Amino acid sequence: MLALRRRRVREDEGLTVVDGYEELTLALDAGVAPRTVLHCPELMLDPAAQGEIVQRARDLGASTIRLSRGAFEKVAYREGPDGFLAVVPVAGVALGDLDLPPDPLVLVCEGLEKPGNLGAVLRTADAAGVAAVVAADPVTDWGNPNVVRASKGTVFSVPVASATTEEVVAWLRRHGIRLVATTPDTDTTHTDVDYRGGVAIAVGTEKQGLTVAALTAADARVRIPMVGRVNSLNAATAAAVVIYEAVRQRSS
Amino acid sequence: MLALRRRRVREDEGLTVVDGYEELTLALDAGVAPRTVLHCPELMLDPAAQGEIVQRARDLGASTIRLSRGAFEKVAYREGPDGFLAVVPVAGVALGDLDLPPDPLVLVCEGLEKPGNLGAVLRTADAAGVAAVVAADPVTDWGNPNVVRASKGTVFSVPVASATTEEVVAWLRRHGIRLVATTPDTDTTHTDVDYRGGVAIAVGTEKQGLTVAALTAADARVRIPMVGRVNSLNAATAAAVVIYEAVRQRSS
Repeated sequence: MLALRRRRVREDEGLTVVDGYEELTLALDAGVAPRTVLHCPELMLDPAAQGEIVQRARDLGASTIRLSRGAFEKVAYREGPDGFLAVVPVAGVALGDLDLPPDPLVLVCEGLEKPGNLGAVLRTADAAGVAAVVAADPVTDWGNPNVVRASKGTVFSVPVASATTEEVVAWLRRHGIRLVATTPDTDTTHTDVDYRGGVAIAVGTEKQGLTVAALTAADARVRIPMVGRVNSLNAATAAAVVIYEAVRQRSS
Repeated sequence: MLALRRRRVREDEGLTVVDGYEELTLALDAGVAPRTVLHCPELMLDPAAQGEIVQRARDLGASTIRLSRGAFEKVAYREGPDGFLAVVPVAGVALGDLDLPPDPLVLVCEGLEKPGNLGAVLRTADAAGVAAVVAADPVTDWGNPNVVRASKGTVFSVPVASATTEEVVAWLRRHGIRLVATTPDTDTTHTDVDYRGGVAIAVGTEKQGLTVAALTAADARVRIPMVGRVNSLNAATAAAVVIYEAVRQRSS
């Protein structure tokens, strides 16, 4: 369990940790079958109601282990654990295995590394009905427990994949999906392009933005108008603004 | 310096801490006159270039104190300090003292408590050219050092104020500013209302949303369309989506 805090171990084992009742519920709702569920009724907010999920996990084939408070707190990843901790297969499939609807809206995150930002991006993708979130040249893996937590479990409900930027660009071309890249270095604002049909929106890191490879491959480059002193939106915020402009156009 | 980590002390003294070169630069650019600047060349990334700001602060009347690395690390608020730490007057004016342009776009944040969210909201307000950000019934003060840091210093460049929700509503009425409240409990989507003229956009906490008082006072209630499992955007993300829809309408 402790070993899964390390990316290498997560990737070798294909497993990660889900920590907390809400996240575990979302994972189960999304069809995830946990391997192991540790539970501690003494730490649960409402043992009678919440304990039911332990049986649900057991029905899906999970081993379930009841721990004392002291033992649970020792293995829990976060402070203030709520009595639920599960080992589950990591989210994410190979790029070629993503199951896309016709005319998909896709989000490509290149190089994003802050788990909090990736989690916020997944919540936005979930809310906006994005067909898939693809990490290009990722620094952080989808199994990172802080991504799982910040995503409120949506890492299991939104289809996700990881690949190199080159592979992502080739995959988009193969599927006839146009690439719209966000960058400060253009005069086209994000409301000036057409997001109908198959479209991927690409966002880069706050510091460096998208790579030259991604910018060069783009069918359109757009900027979010900014008039302030800092001239930099949080990466997850910028993604949300462009995604919801696409949603607006696609639903009108 | 350490005492300013406590809200009570910040409010009594009207002072807060700015930690870091980038934030201090933004504060000075925004017209803030520091009382005291602690500096430690050994910790600076580029002492020759960055040290200049110490003289700039001195010219504005600040006492400046050079500390050894050991002493500086003891007083620094964050891990990995970069050699700059300043005591400055807290941001924020009384509601009645906010200087509004004609037809202002205002953001009202009710009850927001996470400093990271407040900081992200300020960065968005700065980027979008929002005329003022008003905290209604705030749980977190504008002087909170984590707000200052998460805002990247924009807490000093964006006009901010705090008041009770009742006072905010009365103030909006007095200025003829329409209130658009965000809430999941409406069928009107955020792209269906007119944001031209004097408009305030109100967002509440992620868990509880806006209070009945704010919802009742609103001229329009709007929701961001959400199709996912979690049905909750991060509060700062939701604010950004609505603000940029307003910017789109106001610039077209």
